[in-house]
Amino acid sequence: MFDYKLLEALAAVVEQGGFERAAQVLGLSQSAISQRIKLLESRVGAPVLLRLSPPLATPAGQRLLNHAQQVRLLERDLGQDLPMVGDEQGPTRLRIALNADSLATWWAPAVADFCVREQMLVDLVTDDQEVVLRRMRAGDVAGCVCATAEPVAGARSVPLGSMRYLAVASAAVLGREHQGLRDPAAVLRILPAVVFGPDDQLQHRFLSEIGHKGDFQHHLCPSSEGFVRMLCAGMGWGMVPALQIQPQLRSGELCEVLPGRHVDVPLFWHYWRHGGRLLEALTRCLIIQAPLLLADGHIA
Amino acid sequence: MFDYKLLEALAAVVEQGGFERAAQVLGLSQSAISQRIKLLESRVGAPVLLRLSPPLATPAGQRLLNHAQQVRLLERDLGQDLPMVGDEQGPTRLRIALNADSLATWWAPAVADFCVREQMLVDLVTDDQEVVLRRMRAGDVAGCVCATAEPVAGARSVPLGSMRYLAVASAAVLGREHQGLRDPAAVLRILPAVVFGPDDQLQHRFLSEIGHKGDFQHHLCPSSEGFVRMLCAGMGWGMVPALQIQPQLRSGELCEVLPGRHVDVPLFWHYWRHGGRLLEALTRCLIIQAPLLLADGHIA
Repeated sequence: MFDYKLLEALAAVVEQGGFERAAQVLGLSQSAISQRIKLLESRVGAPVLLRLSPPLATPAGQRLLNHAQQVRLLERDLGQDLPMVGDEQGPTRLRIALNADSLATWWAPAVADFCVREQMLVDLVTDDQEVVLRRMRAGDVAGCVCATAEPVAGARSVPLGSMRYLAVASAAVLGREHQGLRDPAAVLRILPAVVFGPDDQLQHRFLSEIGHKGDFQHHLCPSSEGFVRMLCAGMGWGMVPALQIQPQLRSGELCEVLPGRHVDVPLFWHYWRHGGRLLEALTRCLIIQAPLLLADGHIA
Repeated sequence: MFDYKLLEALAAVVEQGGFERAAQVLGLSQSAISQRIKLLESRVGAPVLLRLSPPLATPAGQRLLNHAQQVRLLERDLGQDLPMVGDEQGPTRLRIALNADSLATWWAPAVADFCVREQMLVDLVTDDQEVVLRRMRAGDVAGCVCATAEPVAGARSVPLGSMRYLAVASAAVLGREHQGLRDPAAVLRILPAVVFGPDDQLQHRFLSEIGHKGDFQHHLCPSSEGFVRMLCAGMGWGMVPALQIQPQLRSGELCEVLPGRHVDVPLFWHYWRHGGRLLEALTRCLIIQAPLLLADGHIA
């Protein structure tokens, strides 16, 4: 069978973001880590790491990490059935990708009790919901939350409900800009938008639904909380989950630009088909909790 | 002089995260973009892009992007002095790196009025404060907020004040875990920590200050808002800016694990020495606003 010490070294370098810290975590010297990575590459016949700062797994490296994580999950099941084997295992770490807006809203309340009960630690990675699935396909994560229903090879997907996005801006800015405008939608062409990143097409979609085509001025802000702070501070308008800004909507600090119009983004949980019992139990937890929490954002 | 059309193509590919969207934004075909990148590489004599998804600038590519951004800022100044030249320029976009905790707290209130007045759009990138400076050194951004005072070559730095971090957990969890413990610090060894990412050493620092050495169980959560949600949901303890959790501290939802102990992280603004008048004016704005806003986190 495979030498899992080599895979452990690869996983540590990627998770810790460098050889030095990987060596610390595994209690080895840096040169021992380097040797293991080189040995792994000679076995695989391809580079497994791009030597950047931080190092990135190549496609071959990602496939290996995926395999290592699956083996870890299966070892956990083994440890439950044969307690002697699992004696030293402690908590299991699961690597999960999700869109930043889910992490900023419903994710933690949905999974917290489960994590505490099952002694599960999470290693979360965030990306825009349109790109999160790439990580799943690349085998970089055991599960992901994204807007696509279609599962990748080797995985299943289940619907979780939908996230309601509202186009909002600060009350102060809307009051100022609306003066003298007949068409409330015109404010969207005057104010800059705030966009999460190059993959975030929500603002484009909302503008195109109200008949505005083409490019528009925008700030880029890759942080859910920073995004809301920029809107509250009057820097522009943007699409935000209703769930995330309930206090600001209630207090009147943020207002809908076109009340009653919204964009609903469906969310799906994707998980490995052979990910072991922990992943299956987490899936059952999400199927129950997520729709309840997401539904709160649909109440105006 | 240099052919800036080539640099514009490189900047668009990196900013838009791909050749297809870069082509759309510049109104060119994808093959025209590819040709420009190849031409640039033959002029430079080195690759400027790693063809990943999304593409990443190589060190040579980053140096070129840095130069392009500096030229854009100087062109803005020229446009103000010779309005005919600047006729078509519209708002200026400034690429700035900052730690996620600054973006989640004081950044937007500090710069919002300035951005509106100067028609400045921001392209923000976030990273842990210990690594943000690497982007400045790499020439990827025009300015950055980080914990290091020492400026990189070609840049200046000014102090902005310090961010106060408290070790907190949910009141419910602390109540449960404290039962039967004589030493309140013991709870930090029982509960998992929440850590922002491999570069986040705040939890390590706090534990080592209270005498706990070595590794500890932790979740990884690369989102300021997700971090707070995980703490509120009872998944663990973590170091959070006092500024960010004032409502939760007031309501008693989150409590300090060891009241009165905190970690203060100094923050500095780094900016290009020859970045033009806009960057200098932004610097003056930050020197006034940031210390006022940061000081609010020091009041218990």
